[in-house]
Amino acid sequence: MNLRSDNEAPGAPQILQALIAANAGPAHAYGRDGWSEQLNERFSEVFETDTLVYPVATGTAANALAVAQACPPYGAVFCHQTAHLNVDECGAPEFYAHGAKLVPLAGAHGKLAPDPIRAAIDLLGDDVHQPQPALLSLTQATECGTVYSRTEIEALTALARAHGLRCHLDGARFANALVATGATPAALTWRAGIDLMSFGATKNGALGAEALLFFDRALAAGFARRRMQAGHLLSKQRYASAQLLAYLDQDLWLVTARRANEAARRIGAALDAHPQATLIHPVEINQVFARLEPELDATLRAAGIEYLSWPGEPDLYRMVAPYNLEEQQLERFEALLEVGAAG
Amino acid sequence: MNLRSDNEAPGAPQILQALIAANAGPAHAYGRDGWSEQLNERFSEVFETDTLVYPVATGTAANALAVAQACPPYGAVFCHQTAHLNVDECGAPEFYAHGAKLVPLAGAHGKLAPDPIRAAIDLLGDDVHQPQPALLSLTQATECGTVYSRTEIEALTALARAHGLRCHLDGARFANALVATGATPAALTWRAGIDLMSFGATKNGALGAEALLFFDRALAAGFARRRMQAGHLLSKQRYASAQLLAYLDQDLWLVTARRANEAARRIGAALDAHPQATLIHPVEINQVFARLEPELDATLRAAGIEYLSWPGEPDLYRMVAPYNLEEQQLERFEALLEVGAAG
Amino acid sequence: MNLRSDNEAPGAPQILQALIAANAGPAHAYGRDGWSEQLNERFSEVFETDTLVYPVATGTAANALAVAQACPPYGAVFCHQTAHLNVDECGAPEFYAHGAKLVPLAGAHGKLAPDPIRAAIDLLGDDVHQPQPALLSLTQATECGTVYSRTEIEALTALARAHGLRCHLDGARFANALVATGATPAALTWRAGIDLMSFGATKNGALGAEALLFFDRALAAGFARRRMQAGHLLSKQRYASAQLLAYLDQDLWLVTARRANEAARRIGAALDAHPQATLIHPVEINQVFARLEPELDATLRAAGIEYLSWPGEPDLYRMVAPYNLEEQQLERFEALLEVGAAG
Amino acid sequence: MNLRSDNEAPGAPQILQALIAANAGPAHAYGRDGWSEQLNERFSEVFETDTLVYPVATGTAANALAVAQACPPYGAVFCHQTAHLNVDECGAPEFYAHGAKLVPLAGAHGKLAPDPIRAAIDLLGDDVHQPQPALLSLTQATECGTVYSRTEIEALTALARAHGLRCHLDGARFANALVATGATPAALTWRAGIDLMSFGATKNGALGAEALLFFDRALAAGFARRRMQAGHLLSKQRYASAQLLAYLDQDLWLVTARRANEAARRIGAALDAHPQATLIHPVEINQVFARLEPELDATLRAAGIEYLSWPGEPDLYRMVAPYNLEEQQLERFEALLEVGAAG
Repeated sequence: MNLRSDNEAPGAPQILQALIAANAGPAHAYGRDGWSEQLNERFSEVFETDTLVYPVATGTAANALAVAQACPPYGAVFCHQTAHLNVDECGAPEFYAHGAKLVPLAGAHGKLAPDPIRAAIDLLGDDVHQPQPALLSLTQATECGTVYSRTEIEALTALARAHGLRCHLDGARFANALVATGATPAALTWRAGIDLMSFGATKNGALGAEALLFFDRALAAGFARRRMQAGHLLSKQRYASAQLLAYLDQDLWLVTARRANEAARRIGAALDAHPQATLIHPVEINQVFARLEPELDATLRAAGIEYLSWPGEPDLYRMVAPYNLEEQQLERFEALLEVGAAG
Repeated sequence: MNLRSDNEAPGAPQILQALIAANAGPAHAYGRDGWSEQLNERFSEVFETDTLVYPVATGTAANALAVAQACPPYGAVFCHQTAHLNVDECGAPEFYAHGAKLVPLAGAHGKLAPDPIRAAIDLLGDDVHQPQPALLSLTQATECGTVYSRTEIEALTALARAHGLRCHLDGARFANALVATGATPAALTWRAGIDLMSFGATKNGALGAEALLFFDRALAAGFARRRMQAGHLLSKQRYASAQLLAYLDQDLWLVTARRANEAARRIGAALDAHPQATLIHPVEINQVFARLEPELDATLRAAGIEYLSWPGEPDLYRMVAPYNLEEQQLERFEALLEVGAAG
Repeated sequence: MNLRSDNEAPGAPQILQALIAANAGPAHAYGRDGWSEQLNERFSEVFETDTLVYPVATGTAANALAVAQACPPYGAVFCHQTAHLNVDECGAPEFYAHGAKLVPLAGAHGKLAPDPIRAAIDLLGDDVHQPQPALLSLTQATECGTVYSRTEIEALTALARAHGLRCHLDGARFANALVATGATPAALTWRAGIDLMSFGATKNGALGAEALLFFDRALAAGFARRRMQAGHLLSKQRYASAQLLAYLDQDLWLVTARRANEAARRIGAALDAHPQATLIHPVEINQVFARLEPELDATLRAAGIEYLSWPGEPDLYRMVAPYNLEEQQLERFEALLEVGAAG
Repeated sequence: MNLRSDNEAPGAPQILQALIAANAGPAHAYGRDGWSEQLNERFSEVFETDTLVYPVATGTAANALAVAQACPPYGAVFCHQTAHLNVDECGAPEFYAHGAKLVPLAGAHGKLAPDPIRAAIDLLGDDVHQPQPALLSLTQATECGTVYSRTEIEALTALARAHGLRCHLDGARFANALVATGATPAALTWRAGIDLMSFGATKNGALGAEALLFFDRALAAGFARRRMQAGHLLSKQRYASAQLLAYLDQDLWLVTARRANEAARRIGAALDAHPQATLIHPVEINQVFARLEPELDATLRAAGIEYLSWPGEPDLYRMVAPYNLEEQQLERFEALLEVGAAG
């Protein structure tokens, strides 16, 4: 039972089928194929606004290119200190944005709050020795497995906008946030003040499909060439586009996210009930963060449960439910924990 | 009949099957999967030397990252003026290498010769006002559809090396060059003085699989992080790796390249025999460059033959044979030309 | 008699005095000193329009920062193939502009003409594989010692503007061009369609003072931080600013430029009359380009005349008249040539 | 009495005289002048080892170019959170090093200690998602006005070296540290494990003269072109070089630093004795950091004492003694404080 990362699950059957179908014959290259040409319209429907869609190879590319597009080299990007673009991308945003400065901020359960952002903006001031506040980047769902409500996002983007910042959303697990909140895609993004977002499908059922979405057409000016210059315009883009279309088709993304979230809820509940486990964040999507006593950790591993140790904190572990866990796997996990709890 | 680009063909059945097989269950992310872990060994066999393999999303990424790895920001890269990295990558090499200067050189049929390289190196001299000669990049097969022999490559790399340059090969159509020359992969690369190469499979039967190969382990120092920082480490890398393995398996790459080259040979021969067509380059791989009189151009297009006009030269056209042209398509093309020639 | 470069002359007495005066007491740092605070107003008077002035350490910095400010990383800059930013700055524009592509163009006597620019723009087209035409950079006076008339500049900037490009002027020898044409600073810059310019004083009497001027306030947005990030905001900027003010004061810049131009005119005339010398460009400012037969070259050098051999062309030489040549030096040069001519 | 910044003092008479002397006649450009050609030898004497000296326009340029030279784009630089390169350079190091990540660390009184560095290196680990530990940058004297002893530096550089890092020193106030410790230049730099340093003269008596010094010749490979590409090779470099030579001549730098340190000592002592002032850092060089009650602040300002409020901390102030404070100014300051203390 692999709870290491949602990046380790295979693609969903529907998405694999779409990819196979896309391979039936010739198609124009560089995004002029029939699948790619549906993207803007399809996403515009789903997001209920004019949306420009640029597939890229990875979520890191989406984030880093978003920063480069929305922040000058002498600008500052405010993000949570746990944000993927701050701690997991080997400096990709700084590289792509030619030196832009990330300003990592603290906040409970991976979530930013207005006050630290305001304080950080004020600290930079308007002296040329400090970078210009330029971009707010939120992660939805967060790296701690929590979600922002629409109201929370609005409060943050309003603050940002009042200081002249643009607003980016890292949506590597956006579908999980959608089903967690019950909100519409529009409500959690542009209606809440988001200008552009990294849209991830890979962790939630695609074989590999990520895109950068722009809700503000003016902000996308020149982006097609920026993506090309980054080596992120796929020559046979149809395969990525076909995956993205299948991902949205018949709400597949919500179906898979719901399954993953529900699986995590049960994993979290089982752990929460166990005396040797302590959840450190609310379980709101498909991620569970828990402190485990060594005995419990050993028991789980002995039973073939795979999950990651959290860097720098010896007894902290992350379990991520992929979209394709089966009922019997979950029941087995629960049984394992109940026995332990009984003991 | 699509002769627009080998990027427009679908993936070969064997490669699609490999991709489907790779989707059977969970696998570790970020290149720690079973397919990716075979890459170094498999390519080392094929190239008969210790080879490090880094999949990336596109050929542009492979080229640009190669330049960044082998040339400092204040360095100069010598390449043919038609080279993909000079004219088709929207400044990707300069972007990735932080300002490195491409020095485009002329040469018949897309091939570099020693004298212009020597002259260009001498012209830069050793003054700090000019970039430091750092890298030679050859394209094999060339953008004009021609190939370098091992001896030709050796002459160029020896010159480069004598001036302290490293040597890169853009092998977007490397398989086509292999079957055109009958040489081994080793003979056309490291044995001929190449240090690193962009290895392309996408144009020759993959759905999307490109890699940067290092024949010099020291030159690869730090590259894993450079790729990550570029957003080119695929989280589910298994799908790219499985394609690359299938591409080499049972010499599939040579089979597809041979078919494509042979198809182009027939297309070229048919055109060459036609009074309204003039080949402008030898047809050595799967590309045919021809000047067509308007009447012939109209005839071909009316018959549903698709191919590209060459930018900046009104009567010049490129036809590229994909690996999967069928015998009857070729016969039809030939028949079309014979009728025209008879008339 | 040093005719190697106008960079080898010392500063003019008036500028040295200004520098000494600026050293009399404390002054605010980072451009908030009394001298720096006069710059915008003083240059606005001289250029007869609202002008923003940013001193930087070198002409290379002014050019490269101008490109970075006015051209995106995925953009193209059209310039003459002899332009300083193309051949003498070790890739500084590409570095600062993060990969922007220079498109060097030919043109007689160092001057660009509309047709090659139009052809180059058309060749790039609007495909994402090629950089976006973004900036035209003219050099006034040119690297061949010639000058553009206002009408010529207008023709080029009108073409540029029609294609959406901004227009930059490299004015390392702008004063020489002014006195050569008799035009006003305004006529040769913003009135002729120039948006921003590198303003050089170092070659014409300053110890070291260069600046980037913006005639379009919107285009300067963020530039103060860009300069800071480049390490080109001088902490004790007063010394650069005091030089710039003294340079303009009582038309000193025109006085020194006139002396230099007149000296070059006499040098050129003397060479032109000599059978062993051939001028290859009109002598319009303080630079003379001539082919010399070996005997004449030897004679001049034996007489202690220092000047540069032109790279890549064995019998071509450049002589640059600094602003401070003395009458007797010129007379001696003329006498030297007359004797030779007589023989 | 200006205690705002040592950047606000004029140049020392000896340095101005050197600059005037350097203006006497023509000299070769781009560092081939007689002054520049003495730099390596002169600094090698002073530092008792082979030292390469590259003048640049600003301390920010020296720091940022040092980072670019010693840290790859995917590398991490460990520095104190108050370090100039972290908080005062608008992202210059990240810009020049193409995305390299600064890892700011806490430490009492502006000084780094081994444990936080070790922990930060360990936290990055060797995963490609995190930047590669590459460089340690120490500031000597620190931004809090304190100094590292040779032993302290050795402990930090030994730790760094054990993890494969290179070691940089930001010596914007290096002379102040020298006289504070009584150590030799060698003892505080290469003998203590420093590979390269930013050498500042501007804050201690120069009009404007900064340089990057390399104690490791191999590490400087290519640097001349890197500086050129950055626009930091001054065409008339003689003026910077003449200042640097005069700065070292007859130990001028130590004389001026000693005066500045002694002045700050007296300022600090006067404040320390006053009930409304609290020093927050030891006064070891020419900087005094103190919390002042509003009444005292008002008294000082009313008396014409100028100094800076510290950003983000309402009652915290910095006073910096320039090298040229006069005895009567200090006595007046002391008298002012004594009266207040008596009250």
